[in-house]
Amino acid sequence: MNKARLEAFSDGLFAVVITIMVLELEPPMDISFSSLVPLVPVFLSYVLSFIYGSVFWINHHHLLAATRRVSSGVLWANLNFLFWLSLIPFFTAWVDENHVASVPVAAYGIALFMVVLSYRILELVLFKVHDADALLVRILRPGRREKFSMVAFALAVPVAFLHPFVSMGIYIFVLIIWFMPARALERALARHDICELK
Amino acid sequence: MNKARLEAFSDGLFAVVITIMVLELEPPMDISFSSLVPLVPVFLSYVLSFIYGSVFWINHHHLLAATRRVSSGVLWANLNFLFWLSLIPFFTAWVDENHVASVPVAAYGIALFMVVLSYRILELVLFKVHDADALLVRILRPGRREKFSMVAFALAVPVAFLHPFVSMGIYIFVLIIWFMPARALERALARHDICELK
Amino acid sequence: MNKARLEAFSDGLFAVVITIMVLELEPPMDISFSSLVPLVPVFLSYVLSFIYGSVFWINHHHLLAATRRVSSGVLWANLNFLFWLSLIPFFTAWVDENHVASVPVAAYGIALFMVVLSYRILELVLFKVHDADALLVRILRPGRREKFSMVAFALAVPVAFLHPFVSMGIYIFVLIIWFMPARALERALARHDICELK
Amino acid sequence: MNKARLEAFSDGLFAVVITIMVLELEPPMDISFSSLVPLVPVFLSYVLSFIYGSVFWINHHHLLAATRRVSSGVLWANLNFLFWLSLIPFFTAWVDENHVASVPVAAYGIALFMVVLSYRILELVLFKVHDADALLVRILRPGRREKFSMVAFALAVPVAFLHPFVSMGIYIFVLIIWFMPARALERALARHDICELK
Repeated sequence: MNKARLEAFSDGLFAVVITIMVLELEPPMDISFSSLVPLVPVFLSYVLSFIYGSVFWINHHHLLAATRRVSSGVLWANLNFLFWLSLIPFFTAWVDENHVASVPVAAYGIALFMVVLSYRILELVLFKVHDADALLVRILRPGRREKFSMVAFALAVPVAFLHPFVSMGIYIFVLIIWFMPARALERALARHDICELK
Repeated sequence: MNKARLEAFSDGLFAVVITIMVLELEPPMDISFSSLVPLVPVFLSYVLSFIYGSVFWINHHHLLAATRRVSSGVLWANLNFLFWLSLIPFFTAWVDENHVASVPVAAYGIALFMVVLSYRILELVLFKVHDADALLVRILRPGRREKFSMVAFALAVPVAFLHPFVSMGIYIFVLIIWFMPARALERALARHDICELK
Repeated sequence: MNKARLEAFSDGLFAVVITIMVLELEPPMDISFSSLVPLVPVFLSYVLSFIYGSVFWINHHHLLAATRRVSSGVLWANLNFLFWLSLIPFFTAWVDENHVASVPVAAYGIALFMVVLSYRILELVLFKVHDADALLVRILRPGRREKFSMVAFALAVPVAFLHPFVSMGIYIFVLIIWFMPARALERALARHDICELK
Repeated sequence: MNKARLEAFSDGLFAVVITIMVLELEPPMDISFSSLVPLVPVFLSYVLSFIYGSVFWINHHHLLAATRRVSSGVLWANLNFLFWLSLIPFFTAWVDENHVASVPVAAYGIALFMVVLSYRILELVLFKVHDADALLVRILRPGRREKFSMVAFALAVPVAFLHPFVSMGIYIFVLIIWFMPARALERALARHDICELK
C-alpha cells in the first residue's frame, strides 16, 4: 500500500526530470534544416538525460517490484536518490553546450557518482527492512554493478582533465551496463508468483 | 502490477508533453481582441499538440488495457515511443510559427513517422510476451493502420518541398484515422470480462 | 480498471494546470515588502487559477467516483474538458495583468463558458454508458448548476464591455456555487457501498 | 478508493513543487568550476525547497496512510495545504538570492507558518470524519509538533528584522523536528494490519 504511493510519487519526479530538457528546445526562427544545427547540443543533452532517466527508472521499477516492505528510511533514501537524479539534466547540458570541456565533464562524473551512490544507499536501506533470505536481498546484496560504476566514475573524474572524451566513453560504457537491469532479478521476479511477492 | 506502474509513468510523461505548449502562451500586454492575433500560431500549435498527444494517449490506453504481461523490453519500447512523442510539440511549433514552410513541414513528417514506428515497435514487443491467441495479438497483429500511416508520412515528406499544405492535409487525414482507436479492440475488450484480461 | 487510468491521467493534467502559474512568480531583486507589490496581479492570477482548478478537480473527482463504466467517448469528452480547463491560467493572467479591462474580462467569460460546456458534455457522454437508474444519471441528469452557469457566463460576456467588475462578480458568484460539489451526489455516494459502485 | 485519487493528485502537485526550482538552474556559459559560484544561491534554494517538499510529503504520506475516510472537506483542506506549500520555492529563492536579508526572511517565516497551519487544519478536518478512537485521532490529536512549529515561526518573524540568521536557525531547527515524522504514528501503523486500516 505504502509502496504504491512511493512508486507514484517517484514516477511524478521521474517524468519531470526526464522531460525537463525538452522545455529548452525552442523552435528556430529560420526555416532551413541548417537552422536546427545550433540546437544539436541541446537536443543531445535531452537524449542523454532521457536515456539516463529511463535507465534509472527501469532499475528503480525492478527494485521496487521486488520490495515487500517500506519504512521512513526507505522514503528518505528514495528522495535522496531522486534529488541527485534531478541534477543530471543540468550537468548534461553543461557538458554538451561546452563541447565536452574538462571541467564540465569532471563535474558530470561527480554527479553520476552521487546518483549511483544514492541508489546503492536506497538498496542498503531496503535490505534492512527485508529478511536476509528475501528475493531482493539475495540477488542485490553483492551490488557488483553499483560498486564497479562508482569506481569507474571516481577514475573518470581526474581523467577528464587530461582526456575528457575518455571520461565520456567511461560514462557511456557504464550506462550500457545499467541498460540491462539486474537480469537475475527480472528472471527471479518472473519465477515468483506476484501474490507471493506482495 | 508491473503494468500499473508502466501506465502511471506513461501518464506522467503524457501529461507533461500535452501541456508543455501552454507554457508558451503568454498573455498579451494589450487589451484588445486583436492583440490575441499574434498568439494564433502558438495557440494552434498547442491545439495540434494536445490533439496528437490525446490521440496517442487513447490508443496507448487501449493497447495497455489489453496487455496481460510486461517485460523489460516492453518498458524500453514504451520509453522509446514516449521519447519521439515528446518531440511533437517542438516540431508543431516550428511549422506553425513559420506559416507552414516546406522544411518544417518535412521535419514534422519525419517526427510523426518516428512516433508511429516506435508505437508499432511497442506493439511488436508486446506480441512477443503474449500467446499467439491472446486478444491483443489476434486483433493488432496486422497493424494495417500503423503501416498505412508510415507509408503516408514517408510520402508526405518529399511532397512538403513542392506543396507543404498537401503534406499537412495528409498529416490531418492520418490523425483522423487514429482518432478512432482500434474499434475492434474496444469491442473485444468490452466483451471480455475484465478479470479474465488481467 | 480503465477508470483508474482515466483518473491518473486527469490528475497529471490537473496538477500541471493548477501549478503552471507559480512558474510565473519570480522573486523580486529588491528586499522590501513593497517590492512584492508589482507581483500582486501575478499572485492573484495564481490564486484564482488554483481555486478554479481545485473546484473543477473536486467536481471531477465526485463525478468519476460515481462512474461505473467508461468508453472511448468518455475519454475524449474528458480530454476536451481538460483542454478548456488548461486555458484558464492564460485568461486569468490576461485579466489580472490588465486590471480587469473589458476585453480580457469578456474573453475570460467565454473561456469559463467553454469549461462548463465541456464539463456538461462529459456528463452527458457518461449518462450514455450508464443505465437510466444509475446513481450518476439519477442525480446529475437535470444539470441545473451547469445550465445556470452557462447562462450566467453568456450574460457576463456582453456586460463586460459596460461594467467589467460586474462580470467578475458573476464569475466569482458562479465559482462559489461550484465550490459545493453536488452535495446530493456526495450524500448518495456515502450511502452506497463502495463495492456496489465499482 | 477516494483516498487513492487524493494521494495521486497530491503526489502530482508535490512532484511539480519539489522540482520546480531545478528549472531555474541554467548551466553557465563558462567552463571553470568558479563559474558555478554564482549558481550557489539558486542551488541552495533548490536543496532547501526539495528538503521542505520532501519533509511534508513524508508527513502527508504517513497522515494519509492512517486515514480511513475522506470527505469534501478533507479534499479542500488538502488543496489549501498544497497551495501554501507551492509558495515555498518562491520565498526560498527570495531569501537565498538576497543573502538572507531581513524582509525576505520574515516573509519566509510567514509562508512557513501558513504551511504548518494549513497542515494542522487538514489534520483537524480528518479528525472530524474519523471516530474518536481511530488510530489517526488518538495519535495526532495533541498536535504538539504543529503547535510548537507555529509558535516558533511566529517568533522568528519579528526576530528576522534584528537577526535574520537567528530566524533561519529557527526554521532549520523546526525542519529537523519534522524530519522525523510522527514516529509514534509509524510504529502504530506497523503494528496494525494494513487490511484493518483500510
